[in-house]
Amino acid sequence: MRTAYHEQLDQLSQQLGEMCGLAGAAMERATQALLQADLVLAEQVISDHEQIVAMSARAEEAAFVLLALQAPVAGDLRAIVSSIQIVADVDRMGALALHVAKIARRRHPHHALPEEVNGYFAEMGRLAVELGNSAQEVLVTRDPEKAARIGDEDDAMDDLHRHLFTVLMDREWKHGVAAAVDVTLLGRFYERFADHAVEVARRVIFQVTGHHPDVEDVPAAR
Amino acid sequence: MRTAYHEQLDQLSQQLGEMCGLAGAAMERATQALLQADLVLAEQVISDHEQIVAMSARAEEAAFVLLALQAPVAGDLRAIVSSIQIVADVDRMGALALHVAKIARRRHPHHALPEEVNGYFAEMGRLAVELGNSAQEVLVTRDPEKAARIGDEDDAMDDLHRHLFTVLMDREWKHGVAAAVDVTLLGRFYERFADHAVEVARRVIFQVTGHHPDVEDVPAAR
Repeated sequence: MRTAYHEQLDQLSQQLGEMCGLAGAAMERATQALLQADLVLAEQVISDHEQIVAMSARAEEAAFVLLALQAPVAGDLRAIVSSIQIVADVDRMGALALHVAKIARRRHPHHALPEEVNGYFAEMGRLAVELGNSAQEVLVTRDPEKAARIGDEDDAMDDLHRHLFTVLMDREWKHGVAAAVDVTLLGRFYERFADHAVEVARRVIFQVTGHHPDVEDVPAAR
Repeated sequence: MRTAYHEQLDQLSQQLGEMCGLAGAAMERATQALLQADLVLAEQVISDHEQIVAMSARAEEAAFVLLALQAPVAGDLRAIVSSIQIVADVDRMGALALHVAKIARRRHPHHALPEEVNGYFAEMGRLAVELGNSAQEVLVTRDPEKAARIGDEDDAMDDLHRHLFTVLMDREWKHGVAAAVDVTLLGRFYERFADHAVEVARRVIFQVTGHHPDVEDVPAAR
């Protein structure tokens, strides 16, 4: 009985990990759609989003059933509660990829982004995939060192986001206000995506160690 | 024993409700700080934020202890799981008020907002208070009709947010890109605040009825 239970718990972590990977892949495709003004790709991200929503609902239900049937205690209880909280973060990661795809669709056949900032978004898209994969690894391995690495990736995302703002605020910006609004929102979506990946890692580490990691190691998602 | 348990559960809902009220009040003060370029008020919102964070941590721990000690089943279990999820939403509402206050502080002694959009933000601030109070009422009364009212308030916030964008996108916008970036982010913060209040109501209704309310009644927080 205990063994079956722990298998189910592992399965749940696997599921959550897969969802993180899918969210990262969705962000990558949304980024491509954005950079290439590719409507088909944007539509694909938008229709694929249902899959992440359905997986979220299943994962939440699986966690609930584990709580209801097994009445776990101590560390096991903490693990399931964390899983339920993680579902909300991963769900949000998927929604942010959806937002990016929707902006690409709204601006089609035009490019939403001025060429000047393409490099920033290509890099932020690459980081989003890494963050999704790292969160998946942390969920499966529960390795605090891997969780700390997510902090580094989040720092890199924050740096890009900050630089992006200096480009926007520069008096030389000549792409108008509409493009600035899009770039502002898009930058925010990538930054939040990273924050949620960090939060997933924080929750896993809390689950393993029973206390929240130092903000220096893994910054809080704010 | 059952009675003490239900008292604790009610207490938890009360706590979450108070947090919603505090988040709404924080958003109101942050809005005043923004409209009046009031540094003292902005600083107050920023330092008061710790209180919401501490209350979040306490509420989450209280919910966890209820799960651990009482091993609740069925509806009671669902209520506690919802509470844990609601903590994350309310925590986020507080963080969004903090973001607004930080922009007011960053731009001080200047006004972050061009006078032209003051009216929008005054109204969005007013709605935020209402949303915080409505979420509190829903938590305490668990009344589905009150939950549906939050949907209306969220619709009003969305309308304001949309109008704000038409002002920004207008060729007549003459306040430059930096102000447009601030207005874009600020608008997003109020919109997300409303979304989280809606999500709180959705979770309470799910808790009461066992199924998610129709998106037409209470729109999903996306």
